[in-house]
Amino acid sequence: MRIGILTAGGDCPGLNAVIRGAGRRLLREGHEPIGLRRGYRGLAHADHMTLDHPALSGLLPMGGTILSTSSYDPFRHDDGPQRVRDAMARKDVDAVIAIGGEHTMEITRELHAQLDLPVVGVPKTIDNDIVGTDRTFGFDTAVHVATEAIDRLHSTAQSHDRVMVVEVMGRNAGWIAVMAGIAGGADGILVPEVDVTVEELAANIRRRHDRGKDFSIIVVSEGARLAFADGSSRKVRASDDTDEYGYERLGGIGAALAKELEEATGYETRVVVLGHIQRGGTPTASDRILATRYGVAAADAVLDGAFGTMVALDGSEITRIPLSDVVGVKPVDLRLLELAKTFF
Amino acid sequence: MRIGILTAGGDCPGLNAVIRGAGRRLLREGHEPIGLRRGYRGLAHADHMTLDHPALSGLLPMGGTILSTSSYDPFRHDDGPQRVRDAMARKDVDAVIAIGGEHTMEITRELHAQLDLPVVGVPKTIDNDIVGTDRTFGFDTAVHVATEAIDRLHSTAQSHDRVMVVEVMGRNAGWIAVMAGIAGGADGILVPEVDVTVEELAANIRRRHDRGKDFSIIVVSEGARLAFADGSSRKVRASDDTDEYGYERLGGIGAALAKELEEATGYETRVVVLGHIQRGGTPTASDRILATRYGVAAADAVLDGAFGTMVALDGSEITRIPLSDVVGVKPVDLRLLELAKTFF
Amino acid sequence: MRIGILTAGGDCPGLNAVIRGAGRRLLREGHEPIGLRRGYRGLAHADHMTLDHPALSGLLPMGGTILSTSSYDPFRHDDGPQRVRDAMARKDVDAVIAIGGEHTMEITRELHAQLDLPVVGVPKTIDNDIVGTDRTFGFDTAVHVATEAIDRLHSTAQSHDRVMVVEVMGRNAGWIAVMAGIAGGADGILVPEVDVTVEELAANIRRRHDRGKDFSIIVVSEGARLAFADGSSRKVRASDDTDEYGYERLGGIGAALAKELEEATGYETRVVVLGHIQRGGTPTASDRILATRYGVAAADAVLDGAFGTMVALDGSEITRIPLSDVVGVKPVDLRLLELAKTFF
Amino acid sequence: MRIGILTAGGDCPGLNAVIRGAGRRLLREGHEPIGLRRGYRGLAHADHMTLDHPALSGLLPMGGTILSTSSYDPFRHDDGPQRVRDAMARKDVDAVIAIGGEHTMEITRELHAQLDLPVVGVPKTIDNDIVGTDRTFGFDTAVHVATEAIDRLHSTAQSHDRVMVVEVMGRNAGWIAVMAGIAGGADGILVPEVDVTVEELAANIRRRHDRGKDFSIIVVSEGARLAFADGSSRKVRASDDTDEYGYERLGGIGAALAKELEEATGYETRVVVLGHIQRGGTPTASDRILATRYGVAAADAVLDGAFGTMVALDGSEITRIPLSDVVGVKPVDLRLLELAKTFF
Repeated sequence: MRIGILTAGGDCPGLNAVIRGAGRRLLREGHEPIGLRRGYRGLAHADHMTLDHPALSGLLPMGGTILSTSSYDPFRHDDGPQRVRDAMARKDVDAVIAIGGEHTMEITRELHAQLDLPVVGVPKTIDNDIVGTDRTFGFDTAVHVATEAIDRLHSTAQSHDRVMVVEVMGRNAGWIAVMAGIAGGADGILVPEVDVTVEELAANIRRRHDRGKDFSIIVVSEGARLAFADGSSRKVRASDDTDEYGYERLGGIGAALAKELEEATGYETRVVVLGHIQRGGTPTASDRILATRYGVAAADAVLDGAFGTMVALDGSEITRIPLSDVVGVKPVDLRLLELAKTFF
Repeated sequence: MRIGILTAGGDCPGLNAVIRGAGRRLLREGHEPIGLRRGYRGLAHADHMTLDHPALSGLLPMGGTILSTSSYDPFRHDDGPQRVRDAMARKDVDAVIAIGGEHTMEITRELHAQLDLPVVGVPKTIDNDIVGTDRTFGFDTAVHVATEAIDRLHSTAQSHDRVMVVEVMGRNAGWIAVMAGIAGGADGILVPEVDVTVEELAANIRRRHDRGKDFSIIVVSEGARLAFADGSSRKVRASDDTDEYGYERLGGIGAALAKELEEATGYETRVVVLGHIQRGGTPTASDRILATRYGVAAADAVLDGAFGTMVALDGSEITRIPLSDVVGVKPVDLRLLELAKTFF
Repeated sequence: MRIGILTAGGDCPGLNAVIRGAGRRLLREGHEPIGLRRGYRGLAHADHMTLDHPALSGLLPMGGTILSTSSYDPFRHDDGPQRVRDAMARKDVDAVIAIGGEHTMEITRELHAQLDLPVVGVPKTIDNDIVGTDRTFGFDTAVHVATEAIDRLHSTAQSHDRVMVVEVMGRNAGWIAVMAGIAGGADGILVPEVDVTVEELAANIRRRHDRGKDFSIIVVSEGARLAFADGSSRKVRASDDTDEYGYERLGGIGAALAKELEEATGYETRVVVLGHIQRGGTPTASDRILATRYGVAAADAVLDGAFGTMVALDGSEITRIPLSDVVGVKPVDLRLLELAKTFF
Repeated sequence: MRIGILTAGGDCPGLNAVIRGAGRRLLREGHEPIGLRRGYRGLAHADHMTLDHPALSGLLPMGGTILSTSSYDPFRHDDGPQRVRDAMARKDVDAVIAIGGEHTMEITRELHAQLDLPVVGVPKTIDNDIVGTDRTFGFDTAVHVATEAIDRLHSTAQSHDRVMVVEVMGRNAGWIAVMAGIAGGADGILVPEVDVTVEELAANIRRRHDRGKDFSIIVVSEGARLAFADGSSRKVRASDDTDEYGYERLGGIGAALAKELEEATGYETRVVVLGHIQRGGTPTASDRILATRYGVAAADAVLDGAFGTMVALDGSEITRIPLSDVVGVKPVDLRLLELAKTFF
């Protein structure tokens, strides 16, 4: 069999480890893995890449994806579905392993349902918010990078008696904020799932000062809302804002929150937006292992003919779940947020 | 209530995070945590230490244990049990949280059974081999450190066309070797649970050379055995060996294996023994989170009166299991070793 | 003698190592180091702190400053000079070691000149732009952190065929941008010392694409100017900008440059502003050594009565230079920028 | 011109950065760099490798050397000199850039003197002991790795009230031991240049205990000697020792010193031998910059016809010195060792 492997959506530490895992398993079983470049675009436009032993060598510690990625969706192009049908008719590939996030799993589900594409999904997001799996690769790396940054910011906060606001990734779910917040010893955490008012955060910060702690670290998800005691709240998104020259701005919720906290507490407040460094670079050992397990399991699922499924982690076990179950967003475990509050 | 916290056995990244987690939870609930210094010795000899807010501050990223540790076992001292009874009679503490490994859990079980000590255990070992819990804190850090070392050794192996043998911790179980082996892309893994002969390892290395890969990385647990095709095998332990001056030697199984592989393959072979750097220093984000969860859970177990239990991880959940169930060694999941073989 | 040690201005990795170095040397020679808290404010307001052996223990790897810092300038307070005179009259301290940046050295020079304060300066800035010394501690750490971030961004840039703009610190000099640019393999570098037009940067990026390199990394100092082929140029500073709610924005030159490059090249462009993570956290080995050398040398200068001087690095040697020579900004070595261009 | 680049001797972080620096400079100036594989063997045996833009891409952060390395010395092979002459006669290359350590510079000097080989040397050693240059690339990385290890060992030492002996590289000079010792806060340092007796080290350790410091870190160069108060001393080298099965042992001076210190002080003592992890893996930012500067400067020297020279660092400047001046070993700066003693 010739099996196409593709990566779609935002890049994520561990993508190359999945490609290697699936590719090496397929080679070992006597099959031919090939790379489809730039997500489903590579399938639709027959943009292929050899995945032999040399091509699969050295990938484990490497960030990004050697297959490149895009958010190409065949259903959004008039000729997309037909191109996919043609690729299958031409026997470009006998099956596909699609590594991607929620949106990619949606496309994958429809390609399987509507076009009968023989496909297995691998869940990918640094946000850890894909339904049906306990953990996604890339998440541990993002938490690791964010925690290292918080460690570094602690000394600045402490030396200057400052409040530091750290904006981390997480548009729809607060996993990175909560986990990095616990690991970094945050004094306040703001996530998309739960509104916490500026007044509550400010009260915590003042309480710390009264106990002799002149500095505080607040971690906030990019998708969190700015809420106030009067019941008002709103999203603050960087992309909404441009300056007089039309320049896009960083500093959505993080910058807004810093401003409000400085006003509410009277303490000097600074903001750091971690941004893309959370999603690039070498994966942690833990993410390399999970990505390798997913890659090998996806190859096995293809060899078993278990199409229309996504590999997933359930406790310590790798399982397969129907793509039709992968719908919506997995919110952060609120018990972890409760745990974090022990230390506010 | 006054609750004593102690750390016993070898040090482990995350000990301070457990102490902080338990201590802060107890303070928040209006109780008084105190430190018992150097394991159960601190209980028997009334060697105490204040654990107020300042003492618990800054502990999260800190390796080691502020309480110091020892392997003191009250049952091995004639006056030990009586000293423990006296401490309880004096109301030195109302309950104890004991953080330690397999041997500490054994002592803890007996103190609970024989002396009715109101105690909750927290499992600790970088080896990940405690029965009853999916993961112990410190393990992720050990795997992280070992994987970074393997990453560094790759370039030397490759530049010199060498075989590198990396000896990692793991006296009774191969968890670190298997996980770091998968994460580091090892070309052979040797663990205490399964004998692999020198001849098999050598055959794999030669096969790699035939494919054009002039270097190999072999990861070996310190507790693995040296086995040969003729069926003979033996332990090689550093501590058995001394030189003419009586100097203890490093280089148990790792050095022995390197020698045998060099002879069997004809390729230049070197050994690195990672040793204590695997167990010291700042814990990974993941270990800080697990240690914090264990600490808070142990405090909650004390407050619930759930004595004679050990907190544990079951999938994503923190649970409590009877100390009487914590017997023996949890061997490495052999399916992970199978997975690793995909890449040999 | 009782010698006051103070840290002033922005925090910087290595401050604690200087404090430890000076303090331990003074203790060893039989003198009494004390901490003056929050810069010169601690001298003026008699806010002292013991610096005995326990207080000086564990400082070497620790970021920030245990003495806290501020930008308090006695000459900007009506009672400032008199307070300093009073402190000296009271014999609060016999001499002062002042660790700080350009502005602190200015104050120190005037305190020595006008009030005859017996003081020795230690140069501190992550920007490396203090005149009279080859290198300042904190700089190597800032370059290290920025280089690690660029390494991480490479994989994202490559996977997405993107241009990534990385804004690093450096208000008046481009040292961090040039050094991290060379170490990270940047494809363009923009510094305050030299205007490079958007059109030139865009031409380089397009040339790379023509050679098959679909991604580029551009490193820019926060103090660089946005320049255009028509000869116009301007500063873009985050602090000038606020949105409709009055929130300060990140994204000065970095965000502006990203926007202009995206328009000029047609390639997707993203920006990361590293901000405070460059100045916090544990110092590199190299910075710990330099800071320790400075600290010990400052203590020796005090003991030699060499007041009115600043310790400095000249090649491999620690020297003393008159504070009166420490004027202005040390621009980046343009030969290093030329070197970097070899790889554009 | 076609210029051959080779790497010889032990591998070292930054080798690939030198290759890239020289190669890119030569390409830019319109010349043709080629790789000579496995040191001078590649010149003698015409084992070449293309060094075009794709081959030179991605090298900056990569440890090891893409050219492979060996200690092949043409003068130790009967046909060696003639093979080199033939290669030059065949115009295999017009000039050579030889990157290597003291021994490689010796060979290079002789090839230039005896065979008139047009060659430029680049000094390489993690030990920093090459005469004529202030610093060699790879050294900062080795110190960084050793310092991180010492940081990790501190917590173990402290938790267990132990003495930890850390054996670092340095056969002939104590640079790594002194610099990592200062950066890691060592309580004793032993180098090849100066004998310190076991009794003196033990007295220091006991003095620390008397001051309430129950743990100590001793850093020792692999080439240091074991010395005693009675005036006796000896080298302890791992390679001298084999066990009953003929297995080579780790644990030369480090293990011997640990044993002697444990006996002399009565404190539990452990040893860690860092070994090869000091010389592999990604170079620090500082080493990448130095290696890049050396590479570009070596290319420039070739283009200037400055054969028979070695590029070197003098303060902040890159210079060229005659290979004939590169003789012997550069001992560690004893003033740095004095500095370190401030903290013993």
